[in-house]
Amino acid sequence: MFAHTPPPPYYAVIFTSLRTPGDQGYEAMARRMLELAARQPGYLGVESARGSDGLGITVSYWRSEADIAAWKANAEHQLAQHKGRQTWYEGFFTRVARVEREGPRPADGAK
Amino acid sequence: MFAHTPPPPYYAVIFTSLRTPGDQGYEAMARRMLELAARQPGYLGVESARGSDGLGITVSYWRSEADIAAWKANAEHQLAQHKGRQTWYEGFFTRVARVEREGPRPADGAK
Repeated sequence: MFAHTPPPPYYAVIFTSLRTPGDQGYEAMARRMLELAARQPGYLGVESARGSDGLGITVSYWRSEADIAAWKANAEHQLAQHKGRQTWYEGFFTRVARVEREGPRPADGAK
Repeated sequence: MFAHTPPPPYYAVIFTSLRTPGDQGYEAMARRMLELAARQPGYLGVESARGSDGLGITVSYWRSEADIAAWKANAEHQLAQHKGRQTWYEGFFTRVARVEREGPRPADGAK
């Protein structure tokens, strides 16, 4: 559930999205994209949550901006991005950020 | 729902958490903290989602690291942080990141 990232610096892609109603193949695609991302060079982990209001936040962590660019350009991921714009999302927004530091881990060992 | 942040650079605090069972005053505190944060200098917005598995991601956006430090040191927020460690969270993790760039906004005008 929590991503076990290495010490900073590293990069985060913060993807905020609002789903359209109905599944329309979304869950299967989302699982597939998580599998595929995890096999990309420079992948460090992912954390994802979607509330009952439909707003979701997925943060994926990467070693470098070049790794993020390569993942964005992945052919199967490109197809998913296209279908996301067309079908799955009412709206979405992406931010790329450099993680500079982390808070204390008072709950080390948590799930 | 989406935070309407200014052009980068700015800062993001990525707070990932896993709730303990039961409310125990959590929802009221969370609402209060959102109100209080929105009145802090340098606050740019917040996005938050929690899934049915209990994992939540809250990303708050700030003008500078100094603004983040001031919010962290806010007395009422300190009390909430303490109670979070004691009662509300099984685990949590905080990352501070500098937002460098944003994706295209194909869904401008989305909620």
